[in-house]
Amino acid sequence: MRSNRREAELAAKSSDVTRTLFNPRRMAVVGASTNLGKWGHIVATNIIRGSYSGELFLINPSGGEIHGIPIHRSLDEIGKDIDLAMVTIPAQQVEQVFEDCSRVGAKVVIAISGGFSESSSEGRALEERMIRAAATHGIRVVGPNTMGIYSAPLSLSALMPPVLPQPGHIAFAAQSGNLGTQLLGWGSYRGIGFSRFVCVGNESDLDFADYLEYFAEDSETTVILLYVEGFKRPRRVLELAERISLEKPIVIYKAGTTPVGQKAAASHSAAMAGSAEIYGGMIRQGGMIRAETTEEMLDFCDALAKMPLPKSHSVGILSWGGGWGVIATDLCERAGLDVLPLPGHAIEDIGRVLPDYWSKGNPVDMVGIVDLDAHTRCLEILSSCAEYDSVISLGTINAATAFGLAQRESEKLDKKLIEAQRQYIEMKASQFARKVLDLTQSLQKPILAVGMPEREQDPAKGIERLGSKICTYTNPERAVRVAEMLVHRAEYLRSRQ
Amino acid sequence: MRSNRREAELAAKSSDVTRTLFNPRRMAVVGASTNLGKWGHIVATNIIRGSYSGELFLINPSGGEIHGIPIHRSLDEIGKDIDLAMVTIPAQQVEQVFEDCSRVGAKVVIAISGGFSESSSEGRALEERMIRAAATHGIRVVGPNTMGIYSAPLSLSALMPPVLPQPGHIAFAAQSGNLGTQLLGWGSYRGIGFSRFVCVGNESDLDFADYLEYFAEDSETTVILLYVEGFKRPRRVLELAERISLEKPIVIYKAGTTPVGQKAAASHSAAMAGSAEIYGGMIRQGGMIRAETTEEMLDFCDALAKMPLPKSHSVGILSWGGGWGVIATDLCERAGLDVLPLPGHAIEDIGRVLPDYWSKGNPVDMVGIVDLDAHTRCLEILSSCAEYDSVISLGTINAATAFGLAQRESEKLDKKLIEAQRQYIEMKASQFARKVLDLTQSLQKPILAVGMPEREQDPAKGIERLGSKICTYTNPERAVRVAEMLVHRAEYLRSRQ
Repeated sequence: MRSNRREAELAAKSSDVTRTLFNPRRMAVVGASTNLGKWGHIVATNIIRGSYSGELFLINPSGGEIHGIPIHRSLDEIGKDIDLAMVTIPAQQVEQVFEDCSRVGAKVVIAISGGFSESSSEGRALEERMIRAAATHGIRVVGPNTMGIYSAPLSLSALMPPVLPQPGHIAFAAQSGNLGTQLLGWGSYRGIGFSRFVCVGNESDLDFADYLEYFAEDSETTVILLYVEGFKRPRRVLELAERISLEKPIVIYKAGTTPVGQKAAASHSAAMAGSAEIYGGMIRQGGMIRAETTEEMLDFCDALAKMPLPKSHSVGILSWGGGWGVIATDLCERAGLDVLPLPGHAIEDIGRVLPDYWSKGNPVDMVGIVDLDAHTRCLEILSSCAEYDSVISLGTINAATAFGLAQRESEKLDKKLIEAQRQYIEMKASQFARKVLDLTQSLQKPILAVGMPEREQDPAKGIERLGSKICTYTNPERAVRVAEMLVHRAEYLRSRQ
Repeated sequence: MRSNRREAELAAKSSDVTRTLFNPRRMAVVGASTNLGKWGHIVATNIIRGSYSGELFLINPSGGEIHGIPIHRSLDEIGKDIDLAMVTIPAQQVEQVFEDCSRVGAKVVIAISGGFSESSSEGRALEERMIRAAATHGIRVVGPNTMGIYSAPLSLSALMPPVLPQPGHIAFAAQSGNLGTQLLGWGSYRGIGFSRFVCVGNESDLDFADYLEYFAEDSETTVILLYVEGFKRPRRVLELAERISLEKPIVIYKAGTTPVGQKAAASHSAAMAGSAEIYGGMIRQGGMIRAETTEEMLDFCDALAKMPLPKSHSVGILSWGGGWGVIATDLCERAGLDVLPLPGHAIEDIGRVLPDYWSKGNPVDMVGIVDLDAHTRCLEILSSCAEYDSVISLGTINAATAFGLAQRESEKLDKKLIEAQRQYIEMKASQFARKVLDLTQSLQKPILAVGMPEREQDPAKGIERLGSKICTYTNPERAVRVAEMLVHRAEYLRSRQ
């Protein structure tokens, strides 16, 4: 009884702390350095680069300045209270900063230093002492051995690598800073945005359960992503997941699923990776969505953030070429999706658009015709069929870059003619992308587009802008896995109604 | 006896024909058009754009010119013999061109027109008549329903889409022009080069076996790629594959492996897709390498063209961050690769480079240190260990772009400082890529690099140039699949010695 009450009090405190962590009005970098090769310099630069909307203070006994911001010699020198301190000094010195931090009102400290419990038994003792020191001063800790946090509403990139995340609605807690921040960067590159990010580090105080709880209540967040080697409080995470996953989808990647991988995890995050079976059961029971590959972490979250859920297993396939259609059909069949025959009215309608030797079936093969308006029209007809609750379109998006129009051109070509061709394809491909977006929204069906390059280069700026609103993939395998995942998510929610 | 001899004569003839097809000194586009929306215009433009080194003639009774090249009113008007004609006129008229073609010495015709046996029984009759007409005039046919060919030594892009393939040593025969040409374009984008390409079309005359035979003898080709829905002469392909795969690896993707997929294949390429089991057995017996995903078609060929084969299952892993190392370890274990412990001398050597809290094991975790020289040094130590016959390096290649250094920069930053940082990372990441290449060559071990973006943007031009010589992947799954494939290829060759 007593311990339950105590836990409830602590939990309340944790939720206050995480709210402050992701929404600090004022923060300090303790250990800010004028030396370009030091994390104390790089982290400060990244916060400035990210255009943090709160007040930033830099602290180092040696003084100086970074990008025009003066470095104070101590926290006391600031003359204001702060919410958050990010500490970039060596492990041995971290425990000494909490007293100063508490004097200026800091509620939470991000400890990026490594060399704690992940490295040795001496490190473990040091970590325990550090956490006791923090508790003495009523301060909660992120990490240690963390790469920091990101928070979109404040444009706060308090991160070690110079990544510039794209703002969005995915909240991400990762037990690997390098993996986490690389996914943030990959997201920016692909047009996938995040609301919050935290590298959980060694979780010696705040842990996955605390962050999960915050993400659940955060109005900026619609999808949650977890990269996990091992949970400190698996039971609490499961409890939370069962409740949260009815509202917000939780995508999870579990690493350390083989004995050798678990050993690697232990020396990385000091995590007890736990048995693959136990985690498998927990993921299912918690209604979480398992990403089987690292790529699926982003693909799944992106689709869950942007796409409506399908009502059934049926899929309509539109393909610029027959081969992609055959492959996508095989993949759908194997994934348990139904590539149902094309209804009569659609055969009639599409027959008015394509040459008479077209396939007259699902997949709809564009039989290599040049006219991109026909692609757009066929997409519209196919998507509008009540028979299909998801649509996969292959080969039209990114038509321009896939075919290297942006590349060097031969001297022998008539520049005016080529420019006219380029503009035509750009405009039409962009109109197609716009139609994908419009139909997704008006029909409330997921439309997933496959086009070869991951990201537009020079041409088709229109698609690049739309890129952050539609879901595109470099191959049909990814699109079909996403379609399958969306069907399962819809089924899960129906089963819990 | 008689029929065997006849087949031998025909085979000899086919090999002459395919040699001419991929090495035409003079060729004509019959049906060349001044209308920008016609294939007769687009194909001619693509040949000119590709800088074909032979002589190109354009033919259309209406005359005119395309990009400054005059259009002759008939083949007879050329006044020279040609080797190859590419025919872009409607299906019904194709049979009429063979007489003209034979008068000017053409040995082979590429018939891109659709509307033949893939579309209807009338189309099938038309195709049979067309092939009889060709045979009457001693002309062999590519297609019909093909998107054309590419040949690197002549810089010949006789293709429907405006793709500019990168020259290289992969020969590719595809039963889908759209898929095939998109992979060529994707290859250019990724730095993967091709020696020859043919879209086999309906294979009413020349077929997979003919092309395979040519690729086997072609000195420009070191790796062969096949995208197949169904073989016309599976027995002959198997015979050839058993022999060829001892010299040149054959990567194959088999589509149409489900009933619905097979139906789609029939209406696409008129192919009898055949049972998945029979093809599975044939691929194994022929020593072919099966690509399980569309992405693996390129990944496998690229690695086989660039990387030496490993002597054993053992893998050394270098990772910028622990998470990627844990994931790569799990993946290797599941793929049957051995992530063996780090030998004592390597622990000592790496210990001199990394801070003392490093993992002291395989995977070698760079524990997030900034100094990229340390990454290069650790790569060198790990790769040089006799214990490891393959190396996977995660997170250092593309360090610059992954972290968005090329992107917009805040006004608040000191531009000189940022420029210095950018140049440092570019230079060091480029040096790392150079070291990957040097070690691959000097140690004769495959080194596979994972870095998030598929292709460099502005920065690190050095890596972009090296990109065509080293193998890079956007995720560890792809790198591990390639490592596994290389081990199996090496085992196959040893088993046949």
